[in-house]
Amino acid sequence: MLWNGWGDPAKAAPLPDAVAGLLHDLLGVRPSPSTPVALKDLELSDPTLTPAALKDLADAVGTADHVRTDAESRVRHIRGKSTPDLLRIRAGDVTDVPQAVVLPASHEEVLAVLRACAAHAVAVVPFGGGTSVVGGLAPERGEFIALDLRRMDALLDLDPVSRTAVLQPGLRGPQAEALLAAQGFTLGHFPQSFEWATVGGFAAARSSGQASAGYGRFDEMVLGLTLATPEGTIETGRAPRSAAGPDLRQLVLGSEGAFGVITSVTVRVRPQPEQRLYEGWRFATFAEGAAALRRLAQDGPRPTVLRLSDETETLVGLAQPDAIGAALADGGTGCLAVTGYEGTSADTARRREEAAAVLRECGGTLVGIEPGERWAHGRYEAPYLRDALLDAGAFAETLETAAFWSRIPELYTAVRTALTDTLTGAGTPPLVMCHISHVYENGASLYFTVVSAQGEDPVAHWTPAKHAANEAVLAAGGTISHHHGVGTDHRDWYVREAGPLAVDALRAVKARLDPAGLLNPGVLLPTD
Amino acid sequence: MLWNGWGDPAKAAPLPDAVAGLLHDLLGVRPSPSTPVALKDLELSDPTLTPAALKDLADAVGTADHVRTDAESRVRHIRGKSTPDLLRIRAGDVTDVPQAVVLPASHEEVLAVLRACAAHAVAVVPFGGGTSVVGGLAPERGEFIALDLRRMDALLDLDPVSRTAVLQPGLRGPQAEALLAAQGFTLGHFPQSFEWATVGGFAAARSSGQASAGYGRFDEMVLGLTLATPEGTIETGRAPRSAAGPDLRQLVLGSEGAFGVITSVTVRVRPQPEQRLYEGWRFATFAEGAAALRRLAQDGPRPTVLRLSDETETLVGLAQPDAIGAALADGGTGCLAVTGYEGTSADTARRREEAAAVLRECGGTLVGIEPGERWAHGRYEAPYLRDALLDAGAFAETLETAAFWSRIPELYTAVRTALTDTLTGAGTPPLVMCHISHVYENGASLYFTVVSAQGEDPVAHWTPAKHAANEAVLAAGGTISHHHGVGTDHRDWYVREAGPLAVDALRAVKARLDPAGLLNPGVLLPTD
Repeated sequence: MLWNGWGDPAKAAPLPDAVAGLLHDLLGVRPSPSTPVALKDLELSDPTLTPAALKDLADAVGTADHVRTDAESRVRHIRGKSTPDLLRIRAGDVTDVPQAVVLPASHEEVLAVLRACAAHAVAVVPFGGGTSVVGGLAPERGEFIALDLRRMDALLDLDPVSRTAVLQPGLRGPQAEALLAAQGFTLGHFPQSFEWATVGGFAAARSSGQASAGYGRFDEMVLGLTLATPEGTIETGRAPRSAAGPDLRQLVLGSEGAFGVITSVTVRVRPQPEQRLYEGWRFATFAEGAAALRRLAQDGPRPTVLRLSDETETLVGLAQPDAIGAALADGGTGCLAVTGYEGTSADTARRREEAAAVLRECGGTLVGIEPGERWAHGRYEAPYLRDALLDAGAFAETLETAAFWSRIPELYTAVRTALTDTLTGAGTPPLVMCHISHVYENGASLYFTVVSAQGEDPVAHWTPAKHAANEAVLAAGGTISHHHGVGTDHRDWYVREAGPLAVDALRAVKARLDPAGLLNPGVLLPTD
Repeated sequence: MLWNGWGDPAKAAPLPDAVAGLLHDLLGVRPSPSTPVALKDLELSDPTLTPAALKDLADAVGTADHVRTDAESRVRHIRGKSTPDLLRIRAGDVTDVPQAVVLPASHEEVLAVLRACAAHAVAVVPFGGGTSVVGGLAPERGEFIALDLRRMDALLDLDPVSRTAVLQPGLRGPQAEALLAAQGFTLGHFPQSFEWATVGGFAAARSSGQASAGYGRFDEMVLGLTLATPEGTIETGRAPRSAAGPDLRQLVLGSEGAFGVITSVTVRVRPQPEQRLYEGWRFATFAEGAAALRRLAQDGPRPTVLRLSDETETLVGLAQPDAIGAALADGGTGCLAVTGYEGTSADTARRREEAAAVLRECGGTLVGIEPGERWAHGRYEAPYLRDALLDAGAFAETLETAAFWSRIPELYTAVRTALTDTLTGAGTPPLVMCHISHVYENGASLYFTVVSAQGEDPVAHWTPAKHAANEAVLAAGGTISHHHGVGTDHRDWYVREAGPLAVDALRAVKARLDPAGLLNPGVLLPTD
């Protein structure tokens, strides 16, 4: 993973000149005056952990080799991958770097690390792929270690009768899929962060993948969890469903490292699909397309992938750069939907045929497989594009929410308006794009992408727009996050969404499991 | 509801003489020497609530008419409907009767009642249909009120676009269905207690209905909840799914009145089905039938109802009384499965045809619609039969569990053996029947029915068998309850299943929401 950007550095590519020109013409984007600070030029504070603490940590993981205090290891575990995170590291800001990176290899080693940290009053930030975009790795505490789970990357068990697998938390998406594929199975969880994010992170942050219409969200795939806490172990999941009290799995899912460290996840798996097919449909308007998606989500047949871009995103995604301006002025070219089908050949064919009839009835026109295959091919590429945009002096960020179907139109307008008005008012009119990428019988997600010129201080420039979007989400009846999580960035709005008494109940849980408040302090729950 | 038995007294019917004779011949059942104690002969202790407490309760619900202290009201709110509950009340045991029955009409009135109870240190048992079979209404506290929610029986909102409905907790199953049907919708939740149990109870105890294969469990239908606690209100559910922290709905679901009183439930609803069709299939063995159910649960198509009786239950359910003995001796007549399809005519026809092909491939033989329709007709009748069995001097009780598919054979054998060995050892060899009635991709439920002669002291006679079954469930990897809940009866095994740290985390939640420990003390969570 690129330390100050996304993914495999070999895959980075600059923005084509035509796009850069267009950004200049449309949004007033100017080349950035500064280049990112190099790794060797970062000025880290000296590590503060005492020799005794370092020794206890080394004992906990068996050897000092797995307790890293070198500058590069520490920098590689700073914050996550939100645009503000990238802007700060590109500017050389390494104020909240961990004191050490500790790499345990087992549940027992995690427990030992937590005991050592409790003994020395050092905070702990569980670290999987480091892909949080909501400040989930930015604790409100000066002295902390990053607990990197990469060594816990085994498939512990696969039960082909029950179709369950037990995965260690450090498995990245492709690693987990490869291990399962060797035995004929798939998890079916493909978020945009798939190539880098980990099983533990999927669980801790309630991830949802691009094929959620068919395979479900990650929290729906989880059948059991093991949680290591400073006070001991919690194990959940003796049956797929139970009436034995509250569902403790759903208390651990979404806990974002604040309650403990997830050390194994039992998931449902499915046979590898015989076939995968994606295609494009076009609707006259976003509302018409959304109605078609709702019809499929409620009455079926359910495609495996189901997504719909609004007019602006359709335009930007489809048009050649030199046509964008003209088409924008012209009022757009409709809205592109992508439908995907994965499964047996027979099932895929039947669902595709029946869904096509419904989509036609709802006003859709089949564009063909090209837009679908293009989407599938580029599904993990957007974060690379963001790096190129930042290099070119543009600002680009995403945010997302969900609501019941009847609230979706108002929510869409409210968030778009908040972003547009705030950034326009600040002198950088944005391009705001949106898509629906996760559908349910009773509602859907909305995922917004914002591109504008960078302000003088890009993080400070963005913050009021993000806050205005958060306010709009709450006011219009949405949830503060559908699949990115809470972290520190959404925490204040999360507290309002959940309400003070519910938050206090969760704080009571945290106080029991983490009495010293060492686990991801300030993430998810307020510390004061 | 019959105060010392089940349901509508007009529907009660004695056991046919032939069945009584058979029970005598097979199981040694003898007519009970005693008749149930009459309502007028029960000896209740005098109410202990102070005039000040009664006044504050009356103020909370607006009038003293909704605070009832007469003997019949109190007796009608004692315990639930487990067989031990019925045996105790039939024997005249009214030791743990509530001091008063309070009937609030709104969320605000519930809050006011909780405040009044806190002020006077009186415990509160939320009461819906009173159908708990696990001691969910038997607090470990002498002085308590029953909070009867029957007056909160409105459909508060129906959103046909999102297909959601907001229901008050006191709605009984048929009331909720009638209100939804008037607008073209159904909830699709049909547990055996359907006719009497309430929406609030379905949520509090994680109920699962007989059509769960098609409509899902109740906890899967719930999109939002309002909880009144002594410390204030929690409201959940702004979107069908969210990544904003742990799923608080799943913390309230299954909380069995220990965290607060559920005052509204937002559920997903579906269009009324055009068609309902149930039919019977026969398999040579329980294992063969279970494999067929697993195939449908994992690869589809999914019927709306899917259940399978083991050899003994099939025999008892199908044979004429005078043929049972002979057939039992003869090794049985295979296993009956019931498949049901509800939905549009086209969808029902397609699923039925495709499922039939799968069931044939798995060794099943179509028996026809008669067994299916007979099952559908009698689906709510079993509790009436239990009353008749008790009247005839027999003992009859049910218990249930769930596990992953690969554990099901061992779990089935372990529980059956535990029940048979314990009761046979005590001199009352039982008939143990079992069915699978809830299937998931990754596992299934097992529901056992036990019939035997009553021991000298029937409750004391049954207790060791029930405990042996609980031990067998835990040892064989099952959950202590799939859909009956924890109550007081399963609590000690629940604590072992969840583990001490998880239970402590839940107790921390309770301490925050109910600091005085007034809500259903001892239900779900230990009080000490």
